[in-house]
Amino acid sequence: MQQRNATAAIIGAGDFIGSAIAKKFAREGYIVFAGRRTAEKLVPLAQAIEAEGGRCVARALDARKEEDVTQFLKAADDMAPLEVCVFNPGANVNFPILETTERVFRKVWEMACYGGFLAGREAARLMLPHGKGTILFTGATASLRGGIGYAAFASAKFGLRAVAQSMARELGPKNIHVAHLIIDSGVDTAWVRQRREQLWGKEALDNPDLLMPPSSVAASYWQLYQQPRSAWTFELEIRPFGEKW
Amino acid sequence: MQQRNATAAIIGAGDFIGSAIAKKFAREGYIVFAGRRTAEKLVPLAQAIEAEGGRCVARALDARKEEDVTQFLKAADDMAPLEVCVFNPGANVNFPILETTERVFRKVWEMACYGGFLAGREAARLMLPHGKGTILFTGATASLRGGIGYAAFASAKFGLRAVAQSMARELGPKNIHVAHLIIDSGVDTAWVRQRREQLWGKEALDNPDLLMPPSSVAASYWQLYQQPRSAWTFELEIRPFGEKW
Amino acid sequence: MQQRNATAAIIGAGDFIGSAIAKKFAREGYIVFAGRRTAEKLVPLAQAIEAEGGRCVARALDARKEEDVTQFLKAADDMAPLEVCVFNPGANVNFPILETTERVFRKVWEMACYGGFLAGREAARLMLPHGKGTILFTGATASLRGGIGYAAFASAKFGLRAVAQSMARELGPKNIHVAHLIIDSGVDTAWVRQRREQLWGKEALDNPDLLMPPSSVAASYWQLYQQPRSAWTFELEIRPFGEKW
Amino acid sequence: MQQRNATAAIIGAGDFIGSAIAKKFAREGYIVFAGRRTAEKLVPLAQAIEAEGGRCVARALDARKEEDVTQFLKAADDMAPLEVCVFNPGANVNFPILETTERVFRKVWEMACYGGFLAGREAARLMLPHGKGTILFTGATASLRGGIGYAAFASAKFGLRAVAQSMARELGPKNIHVAHLIIDSGVDTAWVRQRREQLWGKEALDNPDLLMPPSSVAASYWQLYQQPRSAWTFELEIRPFGEKW
Repeated sequence: MQQRNATAAIIGAGDFIGSAIAKKFAREGYIVFAGRRTAEKLVPLAQAIEAEGGRCVARALDARKEEDVTQFLKAADDMAPLEVCVFNPGANVNFPILETTERVFRKVWEMACYGGFLAGREAARLMLPHGKGTILFTGATASLRGGIGYAAFASAKFGLRAVAQSMARELGPKNIHVAHLIIDSGVDTAWVRQRREQLWGKEALDNPDLLMPPSSVAASYWQLYQQPRSAWTFELEIRPFGEKW
Repeated sequence: MQQRNATAAIIGAGDFIGSAIAKKFAREGYIVFAGRRTAEKLVPLAQAIEAEGGRCVARALDARKEEDVTQFLKAADDMAPLEVCVFNPGANVNFPILETTERVFRKVWEMACYGGFLAGREAARLMLPHGKGTILFTGATASLRGGIGYAAFASAKFGLRAVAQSMARELGPKNIHVAHLIIDSGVDTAWVRQRREQLWGKEALDNPDLLMPPSSVAASYWQLYQQPRSAWTFELEIRPFGEKW
Repeated sequence: MQQRNATAAIIGAGDFIGSAIAKKFAREGYIVFAGRRTAEKLVPLAQAIEAEGGRCVARALDARKEEDVTQFLKAADDMAPLEVCVFNPGANVNFPILETTERVFRKVWEMACYGGFLAGREAARLMLPHGKGTILFTGATASLRGGIGYAAFASAKFGLRAVAQSMARELGPKNIHVAHLIIDSGVDTAWVRQRREQLWGKEALDNPDLLMPPSSVAASYWQLYQQPRSAWTFELEIRPFGEKW
Repeated sequence: MQQRNATAAIIGAGDFIGSAIAKKFAREGYIVFAGRRTAEKLVPLAQAIEAEGGRCVARALDARKEEDVTQFLKAADDMAPLEVCVFNPGANVNFPILETTERVFRKVWEMACYGGFLAGREAARLMLPHGKGTILFTGATASLRGGIGYAAFASAKFGLRAVAQSMARELGPKNIHVAHLIIDSGVDTAWVRQRREQLWGKEALDNPDLLMPPSSVAASYWQLYQQPRSAWTFELEIRPFGEKW
């Protein structure tokens, strides 16, 4: 493993996509800064990375708090230049419109959109003096489609996409690659499996080709990071080959 | 003027689009409930409507406060069945990403997106028992494009569009028409004229065909309201014929 | 009925949408030029219009032949200034990709896209000297989505949409309104009823709210035609209120 | 260089993007089948590939002729299983709508859209028995936007995108990856340089960051080809970091 003097910060380093991205960048030699709400939940990730000879700093982090985000990214950049920032918190909820409380609407926005704005802006602030960097935002089907029951979630995801677009246009010419990934399918997580089984019965899990392994998702983040600046992608949508879309 | 026993609520009854919509519905016989932050600023609108023989109830209203929105719409519905709700507050700001404070980002969202969610949800709650209604949201170019400097504004407008889409899909089959208008050009307002002059000089105002008169914009809201339910539009974009797009 | 000294040409004046548009413009006082492949099939339309006191010139027309299109529109403009041109031929087919012959692919394109280019261009040529005009293109769900089996049809419809967009941008500033309607649902025609019954059984026809009456579709064309040039729409999508989308 | 028993067919192996893709796949060990209208123009490409130790079969090919396309791809598959097919002919023209002849409109469509349909269908026919394959279509800004003067070109490019989408949805579950690349910027070619100089003067060429080197574009095709089937992208847009979009 080639050691690099650079950090990759993952905000929302959950058990699935977030962890897979963290592992990928750790394997590629980056010092990974992994943040999520509950520090203990990061222990397995940090151990897994270290067992492979990688480096991981795990930190509790509330992505909805400006101070938390600022300090988290600054700590990363203080250790080694911040080269990659991934914003990945999930906040998928579904409620009929009349049952969508203002509290839910606001909270989902704070996690999925406002936190992304804070992360993107602070990452940019640290990267601009280095003259380069990559900022990646995790989107979803709901980034492009406001389906029934998704007023809160889609609103936040649409909003995050706008933040990413606006930043990409402003920061691209300054050599900062901002991209937005549309994860247009279920990722293979315990939560998604359980939900599909509840909705459609056990048969819904018969076809393994309809769920995306987190490592394949992480491969897409790595592909975007690898692009030469003379041919950057802003938006990349991915889905498994068996998906109906 | 045919008097109708129905109310049309305009949230964000500003001097231009909002007022023009209010006047149009008043002329068509609706009791207009006009709301905006400062009650005094509604006086000219109420007077103009009454001078034409129309009916207008003007109320101070902070669209970011759930209680305000709820009470405003309930008052309208108490007077006569709420048949139309227009959400129209403006919040157009432009800042480089590093100068976009969390306060601005949050405030713009509260005005342009969160307020729209509250208005849409409460209007739907009142309309569903009547078995019909129309909810119209004002969008902008920034509803579809996150341009440089528009992280806050576009994020809020993208988010509002998702709210509208999600509501349209859920409420359409319940006979509530939810639509989103993309105002894809400058409207002819004092503020837009001043801004264009600052940016591009006096010549920018030479071509009157590049600005949309508020009454033409209001005509589009009326057209959507007139559609038979067997052929509803969700999204309507308008621009003046001379516009480059 | 107010008689107008103006013609409205309908290319693809089929039994449903095309006829409904023709009737609407005839009722509004326009001399309707109705064209479709087989002249005899136009007889009922012409009779219906004349029975209402309207004026209709019915002509056999192959929209895929430049000469036919040119002569048809010229004949209209010779009678009275051509003010409206509607391009409406259908060509909906569905084949698995391997069974899509080059003949089908080409023929569908000639009818649904190439013919639209010819009609739009020739209408523009006649309207420009008058300093005004409206050109309306009929689109479909397949104008925005290439679904399974729709390589030929969606390709033609995507292509027609590009023609419309390109013309709208060039001709708008010259006071010619070019618009594209997305008919995002089944229209209530014998053919659609039969097809739905075959696919999903008789129950598929139980809900009358899922099919659009041609007259409602025609109302949308009329709405677009009525827009003031200071607030023109390029693209209008319509669907019945009960539609899932 | 690892030799693979597989062919990669490039239809439209022009001097820039097409050649760069051909070289990339040759370096990765594929037998490249390179086709374009004039066989002699393929000589430098074939020589360059062979000089690097790669394998290249150069053939004259008119992508608008079904028989040519069928034979070209069959010859590739006869030599070694056809694993990749790239459809890349250019046909960029710009004419005011009234000056767009039916001949130009048809010819551009035949080259840029109809040829793509033939190539995609025939590649699929050969790949399906192998149980895998990748088909890549070259798109452009005009695949998404019908700009002024682009009625012919955008219409063909929109149409090609629909073919790609329809094929992707049908063939994905059969393990054939169909993707569409949006090349959203000028590629660094003699023709583009000359055109920019004519339009905007020599200064237009001062900033090398505004043109994409063909090799960077080719890298994107390779990235798509490398994606695991559990996370496929249908559409990838690329532009250089300095581009305004």
